[in-house]
Amino acid sequence: MSGKNKLVEEITARDDDFAKWYTDIVKKAELMDYSGVKGCMIIRPYGFAMWENIKEILDKKFKDLGHENVAMPLLIPENLLQKEKDHIEGFAPEVAWVTECGNEKLTERLCIRPTSETLFCEHYSRIIKSYRDLPKLYNQWCSIIRWEKTSRPFLRSVEIFWQEGHTVHETSEEAKQETQNMLNVYADFFENCLSIPVILGKKTPKEKFSGAEDTYTVEALMYDGKALQSATSHYFSDKFSRAFDITFRDRQNGVSYPFATSWGIATRVIGGIIMVHGDDSGLVLPPLIAPIQVVIIPISKHREGVLDKAREIFDILREDFRVKIDDSDQSPGWKFSEYEMKGVPVRLEIGPRDIENDQCVLVRRDNMEKSFVKISKLKDLVFNELSKIKSNMYKNAQKRLKSMINVARNLDEFIEISKKKPGLIKAMWCKDEVCENKLREVAGVTSRCIPFEKEQEKISTECVCCGRPCKAMVYWGKAY
Amino acid sequence: MSGKNKLVEEITARDDDFAKWYTDIVKKAELMDYSGVKGCMIIRPYGFAMWENIKEILDKKFKDLGHENVAMPLLIPENLLQKEKDHIEGFAPEVAWVTECGNEKLTERLCIRPTSETLFCEHYSRIIKSYRDLPKLYNQWCSIIRWEKTSRPFLRSVEIFWQEGHTVHETSEEAKQETQNMLNVYADFFENCLSIPVILGKKTPKEKFSGAEDTYTVEALMYDGKALQSATSHYFSDKFSRAFDITFRDRQNGVSYPFATSWGIATRVIGGIIMVHGDDSGLVLPPLIAPIQVVIIPISKHREGVLDKAREIFDILREDFRVKIDDSDQSPGWKFSEYEMKGVPVRLEIGPRDIENDQCVLVRRDNMEKSFVKISKLKDLVFNELSKIKSNMYKNAQKRLKSMINVARNLDEFIEISKKKPGLIKAMWCKDEVCENKLREVAGVTSRCIPFEKEQEKISTECVCCGRPCKAMVYWGKAY
Repeated sequence: MSGKNKLVEEITARDDDFAKWYTDIVKKAELMDYSGVKGCMIIRPYGFAMWENIKEILDKKFKDLGHENVAMPLLIPENLLQKEKDHIEGFAPEVAWVTECGNEKLTERLCIRPTSETLFCEHYSRIIKSYRDLPKLYNQWCSIIRWEKTSRPFLRSVEIFWQEGHTVHETSEEAKQETQNMLNVYADFFENCLSIPVILGKKTPKEKFSGAEDTYTVEALMYDGKALQSATSHYFSDKFSRAFDITFRDRQNGVSYPFATSWGIATRVIGGIIMVHGDDSGLVLPPLIAPIQVVIIPISKHREGVLDKAREIFDILREDFRVKIDDSDQSPGWKFSEYEMKGVPVRLEIGPRDIENDQCVLVRRDNMEKSFVKISKLKDLVFNELSKIKSNMYKNAQKRLKSMINVARNLDEFIEISKKKPGLIKAMWCKDEVCENKLREVAGVTSRCIPFEKEQEKISTECVCCGRPCKAMVYWGKAY
Repeated sequence: MSGKNKLVEEITARDDDFAKWYTDIVKKAELMDYSGVKGCMIIRPYGFAMWENIKEILDKKFKDLGHENVAMPLLIPENLLQKEKDHIEGFAPEVAWVTECGNEKLTERLCIRPTSETLFCEHYSRIIKSYRDLPKLYNQWCSIIRWEKTSRPFLRSVEIFWQEGHTVHETSEEAKQETQNMLNVYADFFENCLSIPVILGKKTPKEKFSGAEDTYTVEALMYDGKALQSATSHYFSDKFSRAFDITFRDRQNGVSYPFATSWGIATRVIGGIIMVHGDDSGLVLPPLIAPIQVVIIPISKHREGVLDKAREIFDILREDFRVKIDDSDQSPGWKFSEYEMKGVPVRLEIGPRDIENDQCVLVRRDNMEKSFVKISKLKDLVFNELSKIKSNMYKNAQKRLKSMINVARNLDEFIEISKKKPGLIKAMWCKDEVCENKLREVAGVTSRCIPFEKEQEKISTECVCCGRPCKAMVYWGKAY
């Protein structure tokens, strides 16, 4: 049996058992490993390199927009966490408490941050004095702990690696604009860097972040029709400022409370990349975040000139791309399948006959198309191919998303669709939480978001659930 | 009173009260803020940008040497921490224990990592099977918790931001070489990037890392004559492999235990930069890690052409340097003093008369020298000046280090020097821990390191403490 067949067989087919397919990939592609603490995972080099590439792109965008990185403490005293009522209610059931240090019992419990609003606010209350100190545009990259009962690699875990931006502004307009800007930064990142089409909108009050006035979300649709809340941006109004007594001397020389936002994206985005783009051979990685963008595989590597040519190609590409040459003793077939599984966007094969013709074989991971390319033109060609791969991945994902958005005009239709058609359901809503709860009960879906004005459609004039006059169109769906 | 005088007065003079001078700087230069948990600090944007620059340089070096970044969990189950006897003995008194999650008591306590040897070893025991899997060269950037009773910003704290490399190798020679290589990477970084001369050597058994066979250290000398252990590199032999049952199929088809190392550098290096280079006006930052390398200050900014010229200069420099233009309404004097305090290596002043002459004033932070420079040649000039600043900072620190190394031939001399002369003491040692303890008792010093063979000197033939035949020359000193 060839290495190729062997490896492919080890991954469950996507349509047979999507959950198992997912778990197979994260393990076989060596993205993660389980640790001794349930729900805390180890992110292995290949997975972490994806996160580093994501970080690099987003960190630059944040900084270009004037944000600065800081480091807040890992631990929050219990009394500090309790200062904002809604916030503590939301997080209390899932925080980890430090109660002992060395051999001593602590007099006050400390929680490991489940998110850092309270820490930022306490700091802001000390450093903000005048409108001249505003805005403060801070961000941190860190990990947080939320004691989830169930966990799935990257999608739901006790320890979560993420980025959390926390800003304060002089006016509510500015803070609202920031909330919107950062939502757009995320949306742009998903669409243009990850080739993942997204739906934007506001969360319903039931689904918003604990303590936020408004939560905006970036929702993506996975291959199996479930949604993934992929990034969020929150507007806090002056709720936290009042709870933490953050005040500033305003332009009229009065004392005012500033307006705050926070926004974040987590390693669950890696789960999204897997579930939007992956196929039965494994990962398919967006070129911009692929740890290896081009893999060079010598064919008949012991034949004269082959390895030299492979290294020559490596040298041509190394400055502009993340490139790897695999000259190990494994068979070419094994290597093909290995790097297909790892989702490397472009494979270059170079054998004795190619050398004579100054060419090599280029294979695209997204559609497995093969072509012969001139080595002298390789740099430009690879650049073009990566760009085509990116567009094609987006086009495919976009097509699937569109095909998986269904419309329900009444409750029967809604239930029917929820049973038979994977994907999202567009339906009208009266804005009563009772209907939201009922739809969850009868159809197993939650509200994903209320799309913005320009995306709103008048599907009918009545709430899909209760039949009363409706107030908005909502995207509903099952979600990770 | 001008802004300048006001600010300078706020910093305690270095020779009056060094500890207070240090605390003044970290606060006034906005490097950090205290948090609600004693010993956990907030690293503010200016301090964190220094850490980011340090990370970027070192991370590249690590990767160039084949290391890969990973993320291990934050939490370690108690039984895992206890697997290596010496290791747990060293860390048990200072770990923070999570005992409750949400409303539930945990059946097994989890500690917040004080270091991650145990986590890496457990992972390695699962993924290493053959000599073909070796070496594994992993690293992670993260924070750790050690419950210290006393704390000082950057120097000693409960939460420490650091990098920890963990590697495993087929042979002890390779592991020893790695330990040495990484020590040299750190030494090179201190000398060439931070302009801090260092002393290298091995720690005595009493001072080595809990669980290590050998610990090597990078020691730097602060302005006040105290040493700072600035980076360490540990050789574990196969102790952890045996404790964690990491085995591999070797080249003879037998089963062997691999050899391990770990090495790290922490945010305390920022404390070292402050205490080696800072002066009575504030920080003096090494150009390579300065968040702002060049600050442009317009003089008479409302006069025609001044702001335009300042922006022109900004545009000339922005691609190659981290440059800031301060066109705020503060007075030039206030700005001079502000950026001096913040240690910005180069200040450019541009006023109406300079424009006519196509020049500006360049002021070096390290020696406060002023010169007129042609704007048309600015890019090369700034590059040269930054390079000169780097060399000059190193030269000054090196001169001070040399002047602060004293030699003691007997115990009376040793005690005399320890009382009267700040700095390090070179003295011979019999390698008996009894003498090491006695020197601490009578002179308040600890062993800093046993320098390598080529740096060993035969100061005398007898141990400075007990008079018995000596085995090595040791650097002794008070330390942070």
